[in-house]
Amino acid sequence: MAIRKFSERNLTTEVLRRLRGCRDRRLKKIVTSFVRHLHAFVREVKPTPEEWMKGIEFLVETGRFCDAKRNEFILLSDTQGVSMLVDALNYRARAGATESTVLGPFHRAGAPEYSLGANIAKNPDDGEPCLVTGTVRDTRGRPIADAKLDVWEAGADGLYDSQKGEAMNLRGIFRTDTEGRFHFRCVKPTAYPVPHDGPAGRLLKATGRHPMRPPHLHFWITAPGFKPLVTHLFVKGGAYLDSDAVFGVKPELVVDFRKGRDGVWRAHYDFVLMREAPTRRARKGARTPARAPS
Amino acid sequence: MAIRKFSERNLTTEVLRRLRGCRDRRLKKIVTSFVRHLHAFVREVKPTPEEWMKGIEFLVETGRFCDAKRNEFILLSDTQGVSMLVDALNYRARAGATESTVLGPFHRAGAPEYSLGANIAKNPDDGEPCLVTGTVRDTRGRPIADAKLDVWEAGADGLYDSQKGEAMNLRGIFRTDTEGRFHFRCVKPTAYPVPHDGPAGRLLKATGRHPMRPPHLHFWITAPGFKPLVTHLFVKGGAYLDSDAVFGVKPELVVDFRKGRDGVWRAHYDFVLMREAPTRRARKGARTPARAPS
Repeated sequence: MAIRKFSERNLTTEVLRRLRGCRDRRLKKIVTSFVRHLHAFVREVKPTPEEWMKGIEFLVETGRFCDAKRNEFILLSDTQGVSMLVDALNYRARAGATESTVLGPFHRAGAPEYSLGANIAKNPDDGEPCLVTGTVRDTRGRPIADAKLDVWEAGADGLYDSQKGEAMNLRGIFRTDTEGRFHFRCVKPTAYPVPHDGPAGRLLKATGRHPMRPPHLHFWITAPGFKPLVTHLFVKGGAYLDSDAVFGVKPELVVDFRKGRDGVWRAHYDFVLMREAPTRRARKGARTPARAPS
Repeated sequence: MAIRKFSERNLTTEVLRRLRGCRDRRLKKIVTSFVRHLHAFVREVKPTPEEWMKGIEFLVETGRFCDAKRNEFILLSDTQGVSMLVDALNYRARAGATESTVLGPFHRAGAPEYSLGANIAKNPDDGEPCLVTGTVRDTRGRPIADAKLDVWEAGADGLYDSQKGEAMNLRGIFRTDTEGRFHFRCVKPTAYPVPHDGPAGRLLKATGRHPMRPPHLHFWITAPGFKPLVTHLFVKGGAYLDSDAVFGVKPELVVDFRKGRDGVWRAHYDFVLMREAPTRRARKGARTPARAPS
C-alpha cells in the first residue's frame, strides 16, 4: 500500500484523483472545477488558520440567515456578480430580443391574475401612481398573443410585500391581448437596499460597497414556444443605475418614466422574445429560470 | 452617468472595480481572489439556472447541519482537501521537525489534565488497551520539559465522546517530565467514518468516495517558545491509510502499534517541535491553530 505524502503542491491532484469512481460525469466536471479553483484561491491568498476559520464562520452565519423567506446565499451570489454571470451564460439575446437580468429573491409564485389595466398596488400609500404599457413580440416583430407577464416591485418604502410579511401586493400576472399588447397600473419604482443586516450586507460594507439597487420593475414573461424572459425595466435618471449592488443594469432596459398632467407616471416598453429552439445542450435546465415555478 | 453593459466577458472586472473603496487591504486581496476564482469556476462549468440553484440549496442545507456540536462547513473543507491545504501553507516542518496534520472537528477545549501514565479511557468497552510513550524535543534533539500534550481519540465504536453527547472521555492533557518524556494509556485507535449523514457525506457518496478515516490518535502539542504542533499518529497497517477521507495521512506519522504478551498495544513516538521564530508575516494568526483555544 503506497502512502503518499501530500504537500501544497500535490494535494489538489490527490483530491481530484479520488473522483475516479464518480459515475456522474456532469457532477465530476463540476466538482473537479470547483476543487481546482477553490484550492487555487487558497494557494493564492494563503489564509492563516484564523482567516480560514473566519471564512468558515462567515458561511455558517450565512446559513443561519436562511429561512423560508430569505436566502442569504442567493444574496451573496447576487451581490458578488455570480447570479448575473449565470444569467449571461444561459441567456444570450439574439436578433433584437430583449435583454435578461437577475430574477432576484422577491418573486412569489401564485401572484394574482388580473385583467389588463388593473392596478397591482392595493394600498394608497404604496407609491406614486404609474401606468405601464407595451407589447410582446417575436424577433420578427410579430405580436405574441396571450403571453404571460408576471410583474412585481417594491413599494415607495423600498420593501416588497414578503419583506413585511404581507399578503400579495405590488405583484400580479397579466396576459397580452390578441395584438400582443399589455397595460397595467402600479407605482413608480424607487431605489432600495438589498437586505443588508446579514453576512452578505456586512461583506458589502467591509469592502466599501453600498447595498442599493436602482429603481426597477420586475418582469418574468413566458409564452409557449418562446424562451422565458426574466428581466427588469429600470427608471431612466434613477439613482444607482451605475452601481447596482447586484450588477443587473443593462442600458437596453433603462426606460423613460414621464409624469403626465394627471399626476400619473407613464412608461412604455416593447418586449421581444426569442423562439425556444432545440439546442445542442438539450437539457431543459438551460432554458428556464430555476428559483421559482412560473 | 455611464451605464455599462455587463456580459460574461466584463462582469468580473466590474465586480472587482467595485472594491476600489475597500480600505482593508487584506480583505480586498481575499475578496478579489475569491471573486476571480468563483467566476472562473462558473465560466468553466456554465451551470444552468437549475444547477446554480442546486448549488445554492447545497450551501443552505450545509448551513442547516451546523450547530454547537457540528460544523458541516469544516467537514466540507476537510473532505475536499482544503483544511490540509491551509495546514500545508501554514506549517512547514523544517530540520527534522514533526509533520502536522488536520485538527479535525472533535477537539474539545478544557480536557482533563492527567499525571503521566493515566488512562484517558474511562469505560471498559472503549477499546483495546494501549500504552503510548515518547518524547518531545527541539530540532537539535534537546528535550522540552513541561510541554503540554492535548490528546484525543475515538473509541472502538468509531465515535468521539462529543458525538454521543457524553462527558469528556478518551481525551486528556499530559505534560512532559524534565527529560521531555511522556507516557499515557488509551485505546488502540480504530478506523471510523466522518459524519456522513449530511451534505458533505452526500457529496462524498455522489462522487464515488468513502467517508472513512484510518485509525489515528490526535495530538496538539504546545510549549512556550515553540510552534504549536497539531498532528496525529496513524496505526501502521491500518485500513484506509491510502485513502483518508480528509487527506491527513503523512508517511512520517505512521507508527508501529505492537501488542505485548500482556494484551496491551504499545506505540512510541518522538515529537520534534520547531522554535517559534519571528517571521516576516508577523500576524500571530500564522502560527496557532484557530478552531479552539489550546
